[in-house]
Amino acid sequence: MAFWFSESHTDHVRMDILVDEQLYSKTSNYQKICVFQSREFGRVLTLDDVIVLTEKDEFIYHEMLVHPAMAVHPNVKRVLVVGAGDGGALRELSQYPQIESIDLVEIDSMLIDACKEYLPTTAVGYLDPRVTVHIQDGLKFIRKLQDVYDLIIVDSTDPFGPGEVLFTKEFYGNCYKALREYGIMINQHESAFYSYEASAMKRAHKRIKESFPIHGVYQAHIPSYPSGHWLFGFASINYKPLEDLDAERWNSLGITTRYYNTDLHIGSFYLPNYVKDMLNSSR
Amino acid sequence: MAFWFSESHTDHVRMDILVDEQLYSKTSNYQKICVFQSREFGRVLTLDDVIVLTEKDEFIYHEMLVHPAMAVHPNVKRVLVVGAGDGGALRELSQYPQIESIDLVEIDSMLIDACKEYLPTTAVGYLDPRVTVHIQDGLKFIRKLQDVYDLIIVDSTDPFGPGEVLFTKEFYGNCYKALREYGIMINQHESAFYSYEASAMKRAHKRIKESFPIHGVYQAHIPSYPSGHWLFGFASINYKPLEDLDAERWNSLGITTRYYNTDLHIGSFYLPNYVKDMLNSSR
Repeated sequence: MAFWFSESHTDHVRMDILVDEQLYSKTSNYQKICVFQSREFGRVLTLDDVIVLTEKDEFIYHEMLVHPAMAVHPNVKRVLVVGAGDGGALRELSQYPQIESIDLVEIDSMLIDACKEYLPTTAVGYLDPRVTVHIQDGLKFIRKLQDVYDLIIVDSTDPFGPGEVLFTKEFYGNCYKALREYGIMINQHESAFYSYEASAMKRAHKRIKESFPIHGVYQAHIPSYPSGHWLFGFASINYKPLEDLDAERWNSLGITTRYYNTDLHIGSFYLPNYVKDMLNSSR
Repeated sequence: MAFWFSESHTDHVRMDILVDEQLYSKTSNYQKICVFQSREFGRVLTLDDVIVLTEKDEFIYHEMLVHPAMAVHPNVKRVLVVGAGDGGALRELSQYPQIESIDLVEIDSMLIDACKEYLPTTAVGYLDPRVTVHIQDGLKFIRKLQDVYDLIIVDSTDPFGPGEVLFTKEFYGNCYKALREYGIMINQHESAFYSYEASAMKRAHKRIKESFPIHGVYQAHIPSYPSGHWLFGFASINYKPLEDLDAERWNSLGITTRYYNTDLHIGSFYLPNYVKDMLNSSR
């Protein structure tokens, strides 16, 4: 039997992936969680029928979520990861011996369990003894914190359903407060090509600009995401994403990457005109 | 009635676009040519059922085919465009007053006619009086030429069917010969993510390296192409794509672009590690 998983990127565009076998499908208190095996992308995790990651290209997303900030901030000790139940961000962070503690806040424990069982190459990040898992709403967790983290990674789903609070002005303001003086916040920043993600991108950018003095947007090629052109936000209190990149320091660390390098770091911030125009108009 | 155009990116991945109306469908001596109207991408041109361009994102492809070379070479007078029957490369070239003549070599006159009728925003390039159209095989046209062009743009389809000769060592060698001392050749260089395009990419790179002393590869985000991560080749005799970029000169020209800018020019050459590894292994 052959069947296809089909994701609507807009009402008028779909991407289909041939499924070898469905491995997992359960509905938690928050969302429908599925994992299937595919020929082209390996295992694929979907939440509410939207692809969250595939084994073939999740390295691009997770490397770009973690390494740009780590190549800028020379002294990250305490990290908060919000909403990345799959463990991919943890895996990348676990390459840095300098990090002392990583708090992971994920609202859905069933998602973590599914990833540990069906996506071991991603969930391997949970094995790092520096990780503490908090099963909680990200906004509630961060509200009470002040001056704690050097790096906050907001690895949210789209701003609909459980991921929605992670795109609010209140949440970004609380992230600012929870960061130390030289802290950096990185967030999943949606995309510019299709109007659905573009409006979320503009809204997120506007709110981050209101909360942080320094705010950049950078891009990556992620084939399994709508349009393949995905964006990340770099918001900080002091460090600038390009001027404060310390390529020599990062390259001396011997971190293994398949996508990220310190030249690409620079290029990832050089956005197309149409994307820059959309971000500039998001006032 | 609603129907979907479906393109196989691999045997296991497809992209579907909702079609409003089929506008044109004919089979020439070389290929099946179709144009349809879609809600998301505007008009779409397919050759042998593979998307060649869409009105929504063709600007990305055509800008990246033309402007990087024009921002490096300060004195392009004579240009050859091979195989770009749609006229998009001509449209971008026509923004440069310094250019004296543009030869366009396209094997399929029926394709040119279809584009002029159904894709006027792309085919507008044909209105430039500096353009001379040659209905001919690209390899045969270039074989007899020596020391003629400052810029050759190879805007080929995939290396199967009529586009195949434009990926041969003989063709690249003839391009080298047809260029003046400071000439540049730009080519459509396929993609690294799916194995079909990746093998074409590696083969093209190997052959270009054998013909040109300077050879770079750069990237763009083109959502309607497989994986959305597309590559271009920059091959030249003297000019280097980054060291010889003259951003100030190019920016003073007042060229209108929606994707390209001279910062992005730099970033487009900073490839992901996995792409660099594939190119380096194509010996």
